[in-house]
This record gives sequence, structure tokens and C-alpha cells, in this order.
Amino acid sequence: MKALYFDGHELSLSTDYQLGRHDEVLVKVAYAGICGTDLEILKGYAGFTGVPGHEFMGVVVDAVDRSFNGRRVVGEINVGCGVCSMCIRGLERHCPKRTVLGIKDRDGAFAEYLRLPAKNLHTVPDNISDVEAVFTEPLAAAYEILEQVKVEPGWRVAVVGDGRLGNLIAQVLSTVSTGLRVFGKHANKVGLLRDLGVDAVLEVGDEDVGGYDMVVEATGSVTGFAKAAKLVKPRGIVVMKSTVAAKHELNLSPLVVNEVTLVGSRCGPFKPALNALSKGLVKVSNLVDAIYPLDEYRDAFKTAEQPQTLKVLLKP
Amino acid sequence: MKALYFDGHELSLSTDYQLGRHDEVLVKVAYAGICGTDLEILKGYAGFTGVPGHEFMGVVVDAVDRSFNGRRVVGEINVGCGVCSMCIRGLERHCPKRTVLGIKDRDGAFAEYLRLPAKNLHTVPDNISDVEAVFTEPLAAAYEILEQVKVEPGWRVAVVGDGRLGNLIAQVLSTVSTGLRVFGKHANKVGLLRDLGVDAVLEVGDEDVGGYDMVVEATGSVTGFAKAAKLVKPRGIVVMKSTVAAKHELNLSPLVVNEVTLVGSRCGPFKPALNALSKGLVKVSNLVDAIYPLDEYRDAFKTAEQPQTLKVLLKP
Repeated sequence: MKALYFDGHELSLSTDYQLGRHDEVLVKVAYAGICGTDLEILKGYAGFTGVPGHEFMGVVVDAVDRSFNGRRVVGEINVGCGVCSMCIRGLERHCPKRTVLGIKDRDGAFAEYLRLPAKNLHTVPDNISDVEAVFTEPLAAAYEILEQVKVEPGWRVAVVGDGRLGNLIAQVLSTVSTGLRVFGKHANKVGLLRDLGVDAVLEVGDEDVGGYDMVVEATGSVTGFAKAAKLVKPRGIVVMKSTVAAKHELNLSPLVVNEVTLVGSRCGPFKPALNALSKGLVKVSNLVDAIYPLDEYRDAFKTAEQPQTLKVLLKP
Repeated sequence: MKALYFDGHELSLSTDYQLGRHDEVLVKVAYAGICGTDLEILKGYAGFTGVPGHEFMGVVVDAVDRSFNGRRVVGEINVGCGVCSMCIRGLERHCPKRTVLGIKDRDGAFAEYLRLPAKNLHTVPDNISDVEAVFTEPLAAAYEILEQVKVEPGWRVAVVGDGRLGNLIAQVLSTVSTGLRVFGKHANKVGLLRDLGVDAVLEVGDEDVGGYDMVVEATGSVTGFAKAAKLVKPRGIVVMKSTVAAKHELNLSPLVVNEVTLVGSRCGPFKPALNALSKGLVKVSNLVDAIYPLDEYRDAFKTAEQPQTLKVLLKP
């Protein structure tokens, strides 16, 4: 089959890639999304080699349970050992022996087919389109914030970052908070948020400094953290969503003095994400800039890296 | 009066220092402790100029309420504006206009006398000695952890740092946790903890990596954070106690991936600290290495800076 392969240095198209894990469900990939983490992986983040890609929608073509064949599915990306204390708590995504689709020891979605255990797959409701369904994984990551933090109704909440993840987080937090403001960098992306009824701005005003009970850092860049630290109130919460390969210079002292709580936040629950897409609580169709066939992956990644881009999909 | 004065570059002894704030309670300082934050302040942390020192025990010599005169007191170091949202919540220590004894816009305890508002002062119970009482402030900072985190009985808890603050934190956490281990750097300090019945080690073993539900970073150095990040479990908590002047290179990605929560933690409540000293829950007399008169401040600071030192007191 065709697949994009990353050897640790370079991404290339393989036309006869062999997929292992024959005991797992075989899924034909309909669409796969390029995410900030993928761009970091291609810079060497996490030392991954194999087929990248972890956001996808596909159709089951070979499952042990035959009734599963033909189903439209999305998939949770972490596969745990099943027996450790984390797996027993339902936290496969924190299993120390886990594999992660397209991120850790497991081939991913930038290919014609992928395999995942049946328990990782969720059937996509009929009223969610194929393209919309690709957003289930990043949307689940946005819902993870609500799993970790109880957002009080009176809170002022800031999202730093107007990209694909920042946009989804803003839409999710809008369902529980009326005091939400997004701090963006790109006029087109800020405009998109405003079209959705979200308060979004390009500049941090004097009244914003130290003014937010919770700040979500979702820029995917090293500069986002400093901005988040500037916006948060003493005793407030900063949710950290960016996984950036580079070390960077930080001074944590102000966060200690102000007794700020930082919450690392990663993958989240698929059910509320599928529910939100199905009920139209979150709009994602406007986020797709372009769809490329697998062969045109160079152009696809070039577009995905542009600052003004929101989401690029591959159609294997 | 005699006072140590820091002009932003150098500490010197003034013999005719004039104290302001004549509307506040005048306290004759009996003992003042040199803390890691003081050493950072003398490196330029927080841009302070004035009389440093914020850990003290003293005797009231002039209060509006005359019945207060002669009382042995310790004092909370933050003085808020009294009217902002933080002060109204009882969080004067997060008031944006606050002054802080010996740290921010307020002369401190390395002097014959200091002044603080009456509401900041706590009477020291008779069964706590003058020297023991100096530890109320850092002990309150240790108790702040219990204000911020509900420590579950089954948790494995690590303290990184065997210094004065690490020792006090270990003693406080021992009152609520049976699964506590201190990771130290100095044989004498680790020995002192073991004498108190605390499990303390010099090396991180393989079984320690990723093994702790909560880790308290109390080294006061830039290296402590990396060690704390190594010890904490996925989804665990790192309490950050060190305020270090220098920026340093950090990679927060592992903390995001492992969904670790970082809790900045600073000043704490005096009441449980005085209660613990009074009831003998925490032992502090062994922590004093040396006591110097104010005139010998150069020797005092030299001793305080030695890695093997726990606590140096000044006796003005």
C-alpha cells in the first residue's frame, strides 16, 4: 500500500509499505489531518520513525467481528498494555508501555490503511461528514480540558492561539463559559472565530494582563507560554496544550510567587467530541484549508506549515 | 538603629537607619533567619532595595493597643491594600499592590527594629522558644502545600531538596503521608532527616523514576525542577517552591504529554505552623547552624551560602 514513511530524518512516499499487527482491525483511511504534533515529529520530536499521522476518519475493511466491516470510524490513538495501574484506571494514554498511532512505536494514518485494536475505534454518527469526523481527535483533546479543570461560570477564560487547536478549544470552552477571549496572531483566524461569535483579539490590552482565572496555551510555539503567564491571575490556572520539541528559556519564579497552577493536557475523550460534532455544538467545516492526495504530501506539508493555515487534510 | 541595607548591588551595615511607617506596630527583632530567597534577593531577584529579611521573632515595643506591648510575636510578611478582590478573599499575599517584608517595598527583619500592621502579627505560645519561633514563616510556607493539594493517604510523595525548606516540608508531609521519601544532596542533611524518622536518600533509583503521585521541588536551585519532573507519575502533581532569579532552559513537553499538574506555592498560613511548633509535630532546633550578631553579617551570609548549611540566624 501507499504510505508516507519518516525515517527519523526525512519523509518519503513508499508505494509498497507492509503493515503489521494482523490481529488488529484493518481500516481504510478516508481522510487524515496534519496536526502541529506531526510537524514537530518531522523535526525529531519524540524520536519517531514509521508512518506518522494520528487524526483520521476511515472505514473498517477487516475486523474479527464481521458486523464491524463497512462502518465509518475514528480511533483513539493510545494503545496501552492493558494490565498496568494506568490501564486499569482507564488511562491507557498514560501506560508507560503504550504505543501511539503515528507518534510512538505504531504506524499511523498517513497511509491507505491503518490498524488499531477494536476497542480503540468509535463509530461515527451518520450526521457527521467524513471530513468533520477527522476533527474528532483534536476536538477530544479540547474536551480533555473540561475533564481536568472544573470551569466556574463566573471565570474569565483566555485561549492563547487562534490555530486549529485554539479554535476548537475556544468553541468547546464557549459551551461552558461566557467570559471567554481568544488572543490570536492572524487576522483571518481571528475573523473566523468572530464569525462563530467568539470574542477574539490580536493584541493583549492593559486590562488583560493578570486578568484571567484560566488561560489555555494552544499556540504550539515557544512564545505562547510567556503570553499565558502574563494573562493569568494570581492563583489562576494555565492549561498547557503545546508540545514543542525545543527546550526554551523560562523563568518559573513569577508562577511560584503568584501560586499559579499549570496543567499539562493532551489527548481526551472521544465521546463528548463526537456528541458535539453530531449536535452541531462545534463547527469544523470552515477549518479545512486544503485536501491533498497522498502523492502530493510535499505540497500538503508546505501548506500546513504556513502561519495562516488552519487545517490541511490528506486523502490517501 | 542598626540595620543591614541592600542598595540593589551591595549589602552594608547602617548604624543610624531611620524606620518609616510610624502608624504600624514597632517590633524589636530578637532573631531573624537567612532564607534562600534572601540569597536570591542579594543577587538581584525582584529588584529589591532596603532592609532585607522576612523570617523573624521579636517583641512588641510600641503598639496602639498598649496591651500588645511586651508580647512575643512573629509576623505574616505580606501587607495588602485591603480593598482589592484578592484582599477581600483573604489573599493579601496576592494583592497586586502589596508590600512584602524585606522583599518588596517594605523594610525587613535584618535590623534592630521592624514595623508591621497589628493584623500581621501572631502571638507566640509560651512553649515555643525564641529561636524555634523564627521558623514559623518557612514552616507556614510548608503548610501552604496542604492548603493547595489534598494529599491522599495512599500517595507516594517525594520531596526534592534536603535544605531548610525541604526539611520542614518533609516533616509537615510526614504528618499526612506514610509514603514519603526525600531526595537530598548532602550526607549531613539526609542524616538529620533520617534522625527524624524520615526516609531520605542521596540517589534517585530506577524504581523512583515516574513513581511519585506528588513531588515537592524545594531545592532552591535550577536543577531541582528536572529531578522533580523525572520523579513524578503521569497525571501527578509537582509543587514548585523554589524562586530562582535565573531563567533556565526547560522543556515542558514531557509534562504536557504526561498531563502533570504544576502548582506554584509560596507563603502560607501561620496558625497551623504555630500549632505544629507548639505541639512538637515539627522539630526545628536541630536546623540552626549558627547565630551571628548583625555586625558579623558578612560571616553570616558566607555561612548561609555554604551547601551544607541549614539555617543561619542573625541576632540584632
